[in-house]
Amino acid sequence: MSNRKSREIRLKSRPNGMVKPENFELAEVTLPAPGDGQVLVRNAYMTVDPYMRGRMMDRQSYVPPFQIGEALTGGAVGQVVEAGPGAQFKVGDHVQSFGGWREAFVANGPELMMQKIDPIPGVGIQSYLGSLGMPGMTAYAGLLRVGEFKPEDSVFVSAASGAVGAVVCQIAKAKGSKRVVGSAGSDEKCAWLKEIGCDEAINYKTCGDLNAAVAKAFPDGIGVYFDNVGGAHLEAALGNMRQFGRLAECGMIEQYNATDMPPGPRNMILIVGLSLTVRGFIVSNHYDMLPDFMRDMATWIAAGKMKWKETIYDGIERAPEAFIGLFRGENFGKMLVRVGPDKAV
Amino acid sequence: MSNRKSREIRLKSRPNGMVKPENFELAEVTLPAPGDGQVLVRNAYMTVDPYMRGRMMDRQSYVPPFQIGEALTGGAVGQVVEAGPGAQFKVGDHVQSFGGWREAFVANGPELMMQKIDPIPGVGIQSYLGSLGMPGMTAYAGLLRVGEFKPEDSVFVSAASGAVGAVVCQIAKAKGSKRVVGSAGSDEKCAWLKEIGCDEAINYKTCGDLNAAVAKAFPDGIGVYFDNVGGAHLEAALGNMRQFGRLAECGMIEQYNATDMPPGPRNMILIVGLSLTVRGFIVSNHYDMLPDFMRDMATWIAAGKMKWKETIYDGIERAPEAFIGLFRGENFGKMLVRVGPDKAV
Repeated sequence: MSNRKSREIRLKSRPNGMVKPENFELAEVTLPAPGDGQVLVRNAYMTVDPYMRGRMMDRQSYVPPFQIGEALTGGAVGQVVEAGPGAQFKVGDHVQSFGGWREAFVANGPELMMQKIDPIPGVGIQSYLGSLGMPGMTAYAGLLRVGEFKPEDSVFVSAASGAVGAVVCQIAKAKGSKRVVGSAGSDEKCAWLKEIGCDEAINYKTCGDLNAAVAKAFPDGIGVYFDNVGGAHLEAALGNMRQFGRLAECGMIEQYNATDMPPGPRNMILIVGLSLTVRGFIVSNHYDMLPDFMRDMATWIAAGKMKWKETIYDGIERAPEAFIGLFRGENFGKMLVRVGPDKAV
Repeated sequence: MSNRKSREIRLKSRPNGMVKPENFELAEVTLPAPGDGQVLVRNAYMTVDPYMRGRMMDRQSYVPPFQIGEALTGGAVGQVVEAGPGAQFKVGDHVQSFGGWREAFVANGPELMMQKIDPIPGVGIQSYLGSLGMPGMTAYAGLLRVGEFKPEDSVFVSAASGAVGAVVCQIAKAKGSKRVVGSAGSDEKCAWLKEIGCDEAINYKTCGDLNAAVAKAFPDGIGVYFDNVGGAHLEAALGNMRQFGRLAECGMIEQYNATDMPPGPRNMILIVGLSLTVRGFIVSNHYDMLPDFMRDMATWIAAGKMKWKETIYDGIERAPEAFIGLFRGENFGKMLVRVGPDKAV
């Protein structure tokens, strides 16, 4: 019999404004033996993502809110360590699931959207939480379908060194864009953006007038803006779009912790004059693109055209800290929490 | 020889904030005899439209700015009273053109985008400046193509009794929408909106909290919002959209006379969560739909499904007053200026 102890992070209280450590609590549970069709999975990595902030509020959205006193959920990768009778996974299988924010869990497959991982050689399984997972797929669907990217489009990407942004930049270059510019919050991140192929990078914390910096970076205007940030970035992008430009609205991290409702861009009128399309999306509505995404990513990785950064915090107890760090830009690339060994059996 | 005197309205100074009578001046000119390929047209009606406010500023946009000291231009309908050798129009032809803001002009056809009008029986030629012209075509392209209207969509229309809005409302009903709600600025306008088939009408000046009024009018949310106004209307619409809803951005009259840049909606984040599409457009990019538009409008007019209102000011000297009145909501339906007789020959 395997070890059935697991520690998990629960929502202790709903955050008001910036999320704080005291909104979380750590708890230990003893899992039951897996029953019919069930497996016990020991997680290796879990992900923290900005969208989880929305689920901490008690409101209707595209995913239901987290409940106080219950463990949070989210993406995770791990390994099956014990299998009940008739389970569709076997001991030793690597799996991705929605059983994050805990060290281990017992579940059947569909319950937590578990899927077997066949790791790409030389690529760690945690990549299924980043470039090969939901964030990568978000970049792919957002740029190519929502943003209707064409090779002649120049592309501006905010939060460009992040889990989604870096993939957007590299897809745009791989697909032939002549001008890709990313924004990030440190010179180190900006230097790395140029290493992975960006034609220019804007440090939004030190550039002064963001609108002027974007104008300078795009003398011929922006074809597609991939928005992860909202706020001032969105206004600067709107102010520099080309006619018929598209704005793929993936997220607005700048306002996830706002207590009041921050006003929108002052230049909305440009949407009319320039015939712009501002389109929001949720990646779960675009999973029909998954086979294309996995095929293209494998090709780009093999060709050295797809790189990413990871920031890894060790231990389930550090998951709240990792999550809070997202909103302070403390991650460089995908923010992950290591909660167990890559190989648990 | 016909009378070749004409009075015209010139831009005297660029407006700063709300446009004023002193930004215009009236001048009298004597036109030359029409030369090779030219005709002399005596206008019957000219149109004043909100978009002209943008052309009074010295800035790049989708149409070049008006020049100080020169006559303004815009849509007009009139009749050919004198034709030079080889002209493609003959004396007596009714024509629409971009030769507005004057009583008469001499031009060849293409120069002012002149087109012969074949009036629909019982429908005045001034309709080619309204429901049968650019505003009607704007409604048609904006709702059906830009807004991707489907019969199952509920539709919210701002400035709904205006030249564009009233046509949008009636197209939506004619095409099968179960719920069309318009907003307007008086009880009289709202009563008329119900007469032409709107399921409900909101008087935005007296309704109090606009967001709450829109929420009440759309318990199941909005499928398509046709925006003529921007500002508070746009925020209220965003706050009540259905998932995958579309916002056709036709204009934002609320801010055309603003001296500072008014902030945008505070609820932009809903664009992401609800997978909304906010799309701006300029009617001139959609004139491939003109034959469909004319065919459908003729059908709807014959079936009594298409009605509109006109507010007519008499005399070219009142054109500035008519234009300024647009921004005060002094028009009920299409705002027109009568500058000559329907039949000049």
